Amino acid sequence: MYKLHSLLCVISLLWAVLRPRSVTLFASLSTVCPSQEGLSLCRPIISLIAPLRLLRRASSSFIFAMSTEAPTKREQPLWKVPENGSPPKQLTLYNSLTRKKEVFQPNNGKVVKWYICGPTVYDSSHMGHARAYLSFDILRRVLENYFGYRVVYAMNITDIDDKIIKRARQRHLLTSYLDAEKEGINVTKVVEDVMGALSHFKVKYDTETDGDKKRMLDKVMHKVNTACSDLEKALISKDNEAIERAKGNLLNDSRDVLSDWLDSKKGDTVNEHSVFDQLAKTYENEFFSDMSRLNVLPPNILTRVSEYVPEIVSFVEEIISNGYAYATADGSVYFDTAAFSANPMHSYAKLVPEAYGDVDDDQLAKNMREGEGELSLGSEAMQLKRNANDFALWKAYKPGEPLWDSPWGKGRPGWHIECSAMCGAVFGDKLDIHSGGSDLKFPHHDNEIAQCEAHFKSDNWVNYFLHAGTLRIQGLKMSKSLKNFITIREALRQYSCRQMRILFLMNTWTDTLDYCSNAMERALHFERICNDFLQLVKDILRKNYKPDSSTGYQKLDASELEIQKKFNAYTEEFHTALCDSVDTRTAIDKLRDLIVVGNAYIVEKEKAHKMPNCVLLRDIGVYITTQLRMFGIPTSGDIGFAVESEGNNAVNGNLEETIMPYLSVLADFREKVRSIAREHKVTPILEECDRVRDEVLPELGVRLEDRANETVLKLVDKETLLMEAMHKKNAEQQKQAEKEKRLREQAEKAAAKEAQRRINPIEMFSKGEDADKYSQFDVKGIPTHLSSGEEVKKSARKNLEKAWNNQDKLYKAFLAEQK
Amino acid sequence: MYKLHSLLCVISLLWAVLRPRSVTLFASLSTVCPSQEGLSLCRPIISLIAPLRLLRRASSSFIFAMSTEAPTKREQPLWKVPENGSPPKQLTLYNSLTRKKEVFQPNNGKVVKWYICGPTVYDSSHMGHARAYLSFDILRRVLENYFGYRVVYAMNITDIDDKIIKRARQRHLLTSYLDAEKEGINVTKVVEDVMGALSHFKVKYDTETDGDKKRMLDKVMHKVNTACSDLEKALISKDNEAIERAKGNLLNDSRDVLSDWLDSKKGDTVNEHSVFDQLAKTYENEFFSDMSRLNVLPPNILTRVSEYVPEIVSFVEEIISNGYAYATADGSVYFDTAAFSANPMHSYAKLVPEAYGDVDDDQLAKNMREGEGELSLGSEAMQLKRNANDFALWKAYKPGEPLWDSPWGKGRPGWHIECSAMCGAVFGDKLDIHSGGSDLKFPHHDNEIAQCEAHFKSDNWVNYFLHAGTLRIQGLKMSKSLKNFITIREALRQYSCRQMRILFLMNTWTDTLDYCSNAMERALHFERICNDFLQLVKDILRKNYKPDSSTGYQKLDASELEIQKKFNAYTEEFHTALCDSVDTRTAIDKLRDLIVVGNAYIVEKEKAHKMPNCVLLRDIGVYITTQLRMFGIPTSGDIGFAVESEGNNAVNGNLEETIMPYLSVLADFREKVRSIAREHKVTPILEECDRVRDEVLPELGVRLEDRANETVLKLVDKETLLMEAMHKKNAEQQKQAEKEKRLREQAEKAAAKEAQRRINPIEMFSKGEDADKYSQFDVKGIPTHLSSGEEVKKSARKNLEKAWNNQDKLYKAFLAEQK
Repeated sequence: MYKLHSLLCVISLLWAVLRPRSVTLFASLSTVCPSQEGLSLCRPIISLIAPLRLLRRASSSFIFAMSTEAPTKREQPLWKVPENGSPPKQLTLYNSLTRKKEVFQPNNGKVVKWYICGPTVYDSSHMGHARAYLSFDILRRVLENYFGYRVVYAMNITDIDDKIIKRARQRHLLTSYLDAEKEGINVTKVVEDVMGALSHFKVKYDTETDGDKKRMLDKVMHKVNTACSDLEKALISKDNEAIERAKGNLLNDSRDVLSDWLDSKKGDTVNEHSVFDQLAKTYENEFFSDMSRLNVLPPNILTRVSEYVPEIVSFVEEIISNGYAYATADGSVYFDTAAFSANPMHSYAKLVPEAYGDVDDDQLAKNMREGEGELSLGSEAMQLKRNANDFALWKAYKPGEPLWDSPWGKGRPGWHIECSAMCGAVFGDKLDIHSGGSDLKFPHHDNEIAQCEAHFKSDNWVNYFLHAGTLRIQGLKMSKSLKNFITIREALRQYSCRQMRILFLMNTWTDTLDYCSNAMERALHFERICNDFLQLVKDILRKNYKPDSSTGYQKLDASELEIQKKFNAYTEEFHTALCDSVDTRTAIDKLRDLIVVGNAYIVEKEKAHKMPNCVLLRDIGVYITTQLRMFGIPTSGDIGFAVESEGNNAVNGNLEETIMPYLSVLADFREKVRSIAREHKVTPILEECDRVRDEVLPELGVRLEDRANETVLKLVDKETLLMEAMHKKNAEQQKQAEKEKRLREQAEKAAAKEAQRRINPIEMFSKGEDADKYSQFDVKGIPTHLSSGEEVKKSARKNLEKAWNNQDKLYKAFLAEQK
Repeated sequence: MYKLHSLLCVISLLWAVLRPRSVTLFASLSTVCPSQEGLSLCRPIISLIAPLRLLRRASSSFIFAMSTEAPTKREQPLWKVPENGSPPKQLTLYNSLTRKKEVFQPNNGKVVKWYICGPTVYDSSHMGHARAYLSFDILRRVLENYFGYRVVYAMNITDIDDKIIKRARQRHLLTSYLDAEKEGINVTKVVEDVMGALSHFKVKYDTETDGDKKRMLDKVMHKVNTACSDLEKALISKDNEAIERAKGNLLNDSRDVLSDWLDSKKGDTVNEHSVFDQLAKTYENEFFSDMSRLNVLPPNILTRVSEYVPEIVSFVEEIISNGYAYATADGSVYFDTAAFSANPMHSYAKLVPEAYGDVDDDQLAKNMREGEGELSLGSEAMQLKRNANDFALWKAYKPGEPLWDSPWGKGRPGWHIECSAMCGAVFGDKLDIHSGGSDLKFPHHDNEIAQCEAHFKSDNWVNYFLHAGTLRIQGLKMSKSLKNFITIREALRQYSCRQMRILFLMNTWTDTLDYCSNAMERALHFERICNDFLQLVKDILRKNYKPDSSTGYQKLDASELEIQKKFNAYTEEFHTALCDSVDTRTAIDKLRDLIVVGNAYIVEKEKAHKMPNCVLLRDIGVYITTQLRMFGIPTSGDIGFAVESEGNNAVNGNLEETIMPYLSVLADFREKVRSIAREHKVTPILEECDRVRDEVLPELGVRLEDRANETVLKLVDKETLLMEAMHKKNAEQQKQAEKEKRLREQAEKAAAKEAQRRINPIEMFSKGEDADKYSQFDVKGIPTHLSSGEEVKKSARKNLEKAWNNQDKLYKAFLAEQK
């Protein structure tokens, strides 16, 4: 069989040599004869005929014919998209709407519409706020910087709210009271007022059921009582100074008690919006400043309730017209949970369906009460609700509250409606992600969903509802009554923003986060090993690696190839962790694993007295730094944490922001030195001051201007500055040249004058420059005849005599001087 | 019907009220009765019973029963991953293996193994190199920074190659010749040599068929001839100076001609590896420096052929043992294209199947010749090949070439095998992306594929083969003979690295890129509108926006919401463009569209005398800047191009790199001022110098150390520095305190001494501190009896007398001084 094949091959070849163009037949022959034997038989013949140019084409056509099935034209072989067992991993997010991790898929490709419930601005932001805003900042950054989405992050500011109203009124009334007191209120009146306030406070104390809170209230009362009896003692002593001091103490210790009492008495007299606005604005700014200190990115869109009342009113009108809300006799509007639930398209309380109708659960009932607001509870208006679950969309005006016009009379928006209406105003009827603290799940978020679906007649307004886990302080719930209430500012006095973020990264965002010393120690430990490793890598690179040269590149040995493999594996595991509902905890573990490998490698090389592979270390360092930056940890350059934990100027700031502080030091120092040098007349120092300004700084693109009272620094294009310096130099040179010319001319003039007065008048005409004009002179040397022989005219003779007399005077003066 | 339903509803309700727990029946009832009528009938009843706490639970249970199908426990409604018509877009790449765009899918998740053919380092890199390396730098950055892959980018350096060998030999021989000439070669010998060289060159000229090249060679010969006749003239004149000058000119103009001739005569005498290495190293470094100037990222792995010869030898052995290569009698090894093609698993020339066997195509034939190398063509060894398509894996040693040991005798690797072997060494048997210039498609890349598949017994070594389009200069092919040959350095003297990159971004990477003034004008125009817009936005933000406050946030009006929508649409179109085989051209268009919208918006607001929305402008500015940075254009801070086009220090560099130049100016200036101030003894200036060092700079985290001969600058953590300053201050205070104490003690001692010498010896015992020890004294006042009445002992008496005499001396001296 083989022999036959071989024979066929040889025949085909010969045929091809003889009739090079007709290879089709042999193509079919060769497909039945792809044997090695046949080929090896052909080879010597091919080699034989190869050098013969005439036959070369034929032989290669033959090879061609033998190697493909499509003989007329060779085509590219079949190719398929690579399959590696598993499809590419997709990002999943833990979705409160299903209570499990779901594949994330935005409505519009790479743009993610994300709404996050912002703060109610009536107090300083605390660690509970950090839990939500820092956690979602991390998620937002991962979606943007790692998964490549463009997130449009909208946040509201609740600046109309029962808590704000009450706090603002209390502060306002207390300030007025204290001002009046300063103007002079009788001491006994003060004691009387405090006593009144205290008995009012007692009612609150008596109705409080929470043990911790009761203890806190008790302490307040105790403090007031003590201050009171101190004042009484002082009054008995009749020592005026002691009385004033005791009164001051009492007023100070009674602030809470007094403001509560004043509000109950006169709260309804406060009506100016500015009182409420001012408080809200103060805490809104404080919130932004706190977030900036935490390096939390600012939102892309900010909506303040006070700016969106018309939109809210329209939103409520639409819900009413869709049949899911009703106005009550007092001018309030409530959402009709029953009507909403009755529509099979809808489902009330999608997030916490268990809560609907369950009024026995204390926590849920409490949440529901709080959702309606302190000022609105127990009001008669509430009795007009059709159902216990119904909630206020619009609250009718009560004295002492800010008010806006509406079709239902004056009033203000309810809490839940603002988020729905404002989110709708900026994003329309579809939202990709909604996030907030888990304490807002019910009723706030469930009500938001109901309102939006009722408004948009939609059964699917938001696709992903994310809730950050709660926060514990050393294992306990954070509360003022437990005295473990920590504001963000306080926390940042203890730990840096970097350490705080590492803590959050090391905890899953959906879990409860315990802010305790153990957890912080773990965070600090990671910070330390990370910093140590990156600094070490930087040091090695500084000494042995230049980015614009190839000197740092060494051949990878077997152990280094092994590290590459591990590096690749960790990269993939890091990716898997982030796909798994942004599991930053595992992701941080992977970075730690990589650091361990890197450190071991460096130690191994040190032991062997060998240089580690700089490029490998660079890549590991850059990868770790890139991921840290991606998570929002300020970094500096390609590798390493930012030098100062509070700022990421070096990375994100522009050149100006970064270098100005240092340039200012130079400018100030120079200014001082210059003024001292002037005073002491130290010219070389003044010259040095000018040289820095005119020669050194322009090279760096810095223009330093000495103005009358100050030094001004400007960053300008280097070229421009050098051009300026050149022009200045040219101008100076020209000036100098002109000055020199002037001086030279003056000197020449002086020299000429001097030469002139040394001339004896007797010789001035016969030996001067006009000597050849004349032929005869008198005894004085004054010309009598011109060179033509003609006699000098009378008028000319006069001028000559005048000139002679002048010169005579000059010469005499010169002779006198000589003596 | 409705009435019946309503009736059923009411009955159900009443039943529920009476038997609250048994709602199952009504659940089924309610499912047939979800009518509004029924509900509205129920409502008044519900409202009626609502306040009755006893019945509340029952009523809500009923509502519950009405709204869900699972009555025992309410559950979350069904949820599905959102579908928006089209699946998420995937990145595609134009794959030369199929000649169309294919979905990109790496073998290992997010890690991409990418090999790019590096330069053969025998000359300066030119715009053709830029075309490939800058284009693939953009693709690499898009894959990394936009699509989130970690690319492991490996590049080789071909430092063993016919071109390098020849060039190195020529330079070496010419240098030796010129050195010898300097030592003194007869002028007639020089002329003789040049003439010999010229006739050798003539042969090359005669065989050249390319018109342009022939013209270039002609010019060279003409120049040499002219220089020759000049020298002849000088020789006739016998003016030695003129002769020397003319000889110098001749040698200079004959460099090419001479070195070619010298190599033909003595090339085979050059054997030292250092000659070849030196040339390669020079151009390798130049290449890295050029790439750095173009802001092309350095590779992650660099493989030099000279470092991988053992791996190459093993790779060739494996191919032989797999039956796809053969050694020839002279000690060379060739790839057996016929054997390879004969295996149905393989297909030779996957990229350009048309090329296989087609020796009539001039360009392909030329490529094939060039692939084998200038020094190897026409050699007898080549005649030993079995097939015209076979190519050298190992080239047997010829004198004048570098050599390595191998199983086939001394020799060196072929060109194609290096890439296969080195890529295999660092990446193993699978590669995701291979890229290079399109001129390398055949035979180089096709041979690489064949070698790897032959070695790994694989039919699928690399999945994506990317080829950058070619480069034209003003519409023409770039070549030295056309005098339009532009090195990267020359190009960067005309245009900045930013402008160059914009040009590349504005052209599709697979298309032919015409480097012409029109194209550059378009690039410069985009640069200008981009810069103008970003500067404008920065200016507006500088004046009206603070990142850590909420003051810049304004409510979005209708036109601004419209811009948001456009912004979202452009984001998506930008994404679509990059998915479409990294279509940067369209992506840049989208950025331009966004700028147009932004500018129109600013103008609109200016006309209306209104402030534009800072946050909206910020987001647009940040988005554009982020994408520019992603493409590798140096930017500064969040918004804007980097100030200096040549550096991206402000962004990517660390703080140190950025501020050091400015700090150095300060340090130098201070050092000069200080030395002058010392000389002139101007203390206030010296104090100012210390203050800057000790008080001002530590606040900025800068440690300035005055050492003996220099000033040292260090960036240190601010806290550390302040701590140091405090310690220093404390130490100084302590030192001062000690000094003061010492001085005080000295003063006290001196005072005591002074007091002592003022004492009259007659009184020294009777009135001194020991006065009560004694009862009687002699005339001199020396004690005779103790206070006890006992007589002073003789020995004691002696001591007392000695002390008296001492005091007598002191007192006399004091009295003398007083006079």
